[in-house]
Amino acid sequence: MITLHGFAASNYYNLVKHVLLYKELPFQENLLYGGSEELLAISPAGKVPVITTNEGLNLSESSVICDYLEETYPDIALYPENSSERAVVRQIMKVAELYFELPSRRLIPYAFSGTEIPESIKDEVRQALDVGVIAISRLCQFSPWVAGDKFTMADIYVYYVNIVASFGASQLDWDVPAEIHGMKTWNDSMSQLAITQNIEADRQANMPEFMQKVTAQIQADNAK
Amino acid sequence: MITLHGFAASNYYNLVKHVLLYKELPFQENLLYGGSEELLAISPAGKVPVITTNEGLNLSESSVICDYLEETYPDIALYPENSSERAVVRQIMKVAELYFELPSRRLIPYAFSGTEIPESIKDEVRQALDVGVIAISRLCQFSPWVAGDKFTMADIYVYYVNIVASFGASQLDWDVPAEIHGMKTWNDSMSQLAITQNIEADRQANMPEFMQKVTAQIQADNAK
Repeated sequence: MITLHGFAASNYYNLVKHVLLYKELPFQENLLYGGSEELLAISPAGKVPVITTNEGLNLSESSVICDYLEETYPDIALYPENSSERAVVRQIMKVAELYFELPSRRLIPYAFSGTEIPESIKDEVRQALDVGVIAISRLCQFSPWVAGDKFTMADIYVYYVNIVASFGASQLDWDVPAEIHGMKTWNDSMSQLAITQNIEADRQANMPEFMQKVTAQIQADNAK
Repeated sequence: MITLHGFAASNYYNLVKHVLLYKELPFQENLLYGGSEELLAISPAGKVPVITTNEGLNLSESSVICDYLEETYPDIALYPENSSERAVVRQIMKVAELYFELPSRRLIPYAFSGTEIPESIKDEVRQALDVGVIAISRLCQFSPWVAGDKFTMADIYVYYVNIVASFGASQLDWDVPAEIHGMKTWNDSMSQLAITQNIEADRQANMPEFMQKVTAQIQADNAK
């Protein structure tokens, strides 16, 4: 059986979990937090999530895991069959990663620790998000799904990436998704799916323990 | 025929060009620089490279284009057939992107403009590169190729990403590839391939014009 390693407060963990549930693949969860020795043993960059496949292979990085699951278990498909349409879906995922997720994510440590964000970093993040708003607006259809009439991997990917991006951008007092026509309505539809709601319940249940870990880490860093 | 848009001084452009040449696909090049209206019309984030496919679809983002070319033209293959082995190759590419390329790249505008890099940004980049050195050392085999005995997409991807990463990290006086066992020897082998040498000749021919564009842009920014 596939094992999903990580913790439910992580949106990357939830992204992969959503794919596993959507594809109706049997899997077990193994609770591991960032920075643990057990995680470093299976993830070369020490990042959550990791899956251990049925062949015993450990795989990291959400987008790599998404592709692996689709290619190994194509029955309940999340990518279009046509390679051009598949590329369009992947381009949306990539743009959301590069210009929404990665820049916004840089602000999250400051939010957790309560320290001020340097202006140089705020400027870099704003510039990247500006590009992201334009690119996502051009690429996404939200009619009703991100890539058009079919639900795809891009819906799952952008939904969880957006949670990270919205939280990060809120540190700049910026409601990024509100600037993208159709995104709020689509986001509401996503949040009402049964799978999303189950994942959200697990996330909320994990939050107190996760926040304890974050607080302990910040205290350890400050004591250095 | 496929059109490759961009300029030869860009390592991302060269990465895709290497894939096209390796796969022996006919293509034409269309010289476009960043910031041009013509580029913005075909690339949602205004980034180089873009390809226009035989179906007339414009695709951006190197990793998306790599996957598209492989899936559409699998005859001269750059990914292993087995989905687990393919995931291993993709994981190497992803780790090189996230922990080598993207952090180092942030230092390049400072190198071009000659302005000092803020310490907060240096710190972030160093932390990311530390993770990258560990992860790449664990994942790459260099025996003789990145993923083992077969030449794969990861060889092309990591080679061009490494040029960006090495230049960026040199701003921290840090020779990152030297810390990774086997990487220098592999890099030498890559640089001696006939395709690499043709691409390098085109890169050198484009450098004077590219640097003129960079200088003009910096002067325009300073005049604001």
